[in-house]
Amino acid sequence: MAHADHLIEEAAHCFALLSDPTRLRVLSFLLEREEASVTEVAQAVGVTRTNVSQHLSRLLSAGMVARRREGHSINYRVIDDMLKPLCELVCSNLEERTGGLAARLEKLAR
Amino acid sequence: MAHADHLIEEAAHCFALLSDPTRLRVLSFLLEREEASVTEVAQAVGVTRTNVSQHLSRLLSAGMVARRREGHSINYRVIDDMLKPLCELVCSNLEERTGGLAARLEKLAR
Repeated sequence: MAHADHLIEEAAHCFALLSDPTRLRVLSFLLEREEASVTEVAQAVGVTRTNVSQHLSRLLSAGMVARRREGHSINYRVIDDMLKPLCELVCSNLEERTGGLAARLEKLAR
Repeated sequence: MAHADHLIEEAAHCFALLSDPTRLRVLSFLLEREEASVTEVAQAVGVTRTNVSQHLSRLLSAGMVARRREGHSINYRVIDDMLKPLCELVCSNLEERTGGLAARLEKLAR
């Protein structure tokens, strides 16, 4: 049976959120840590705090991350359990492809 | 360690391909079958052959599907092994969320 329409729309929205390289870097950084402040994420990803705040705000609306205030800083953490296996699946697949390509190029160069 | 830049860019591109509801419907239909012609995909998804051909062409360029000619028809099949587990992961996660929401609403309605 084909997937229900609402499920397809929601899945497409979820993939759209992950289709921005900066947002993926933000998630990739957060997945490595328990929690991180906006400043820490901005420094790690190499964009402004304003820019990173916009990305975090979209991830927050989608229920992918949660935030809590601690003194003057606002800390974010990943709360969507799907993100880690999802990113691992895609990355291992891409690494495998790249590895396969590298091996073929090496063979050709011999 | 943060993921390498090229990997992040490629992953973002892969997610962008999956962020279109029609393209997801095309993949969802192909994942259920060994192979399907452009006409069959167009009928199942409910869009024109021209429209479905454009989507299939983008999926072909990305190495997600392959095609072969059989008589007058061109048949497509999924060749990226990652797509099935990826779609299952996202859909089961979304269904769980929707189920959780339905259960909460039911509780409130009592």
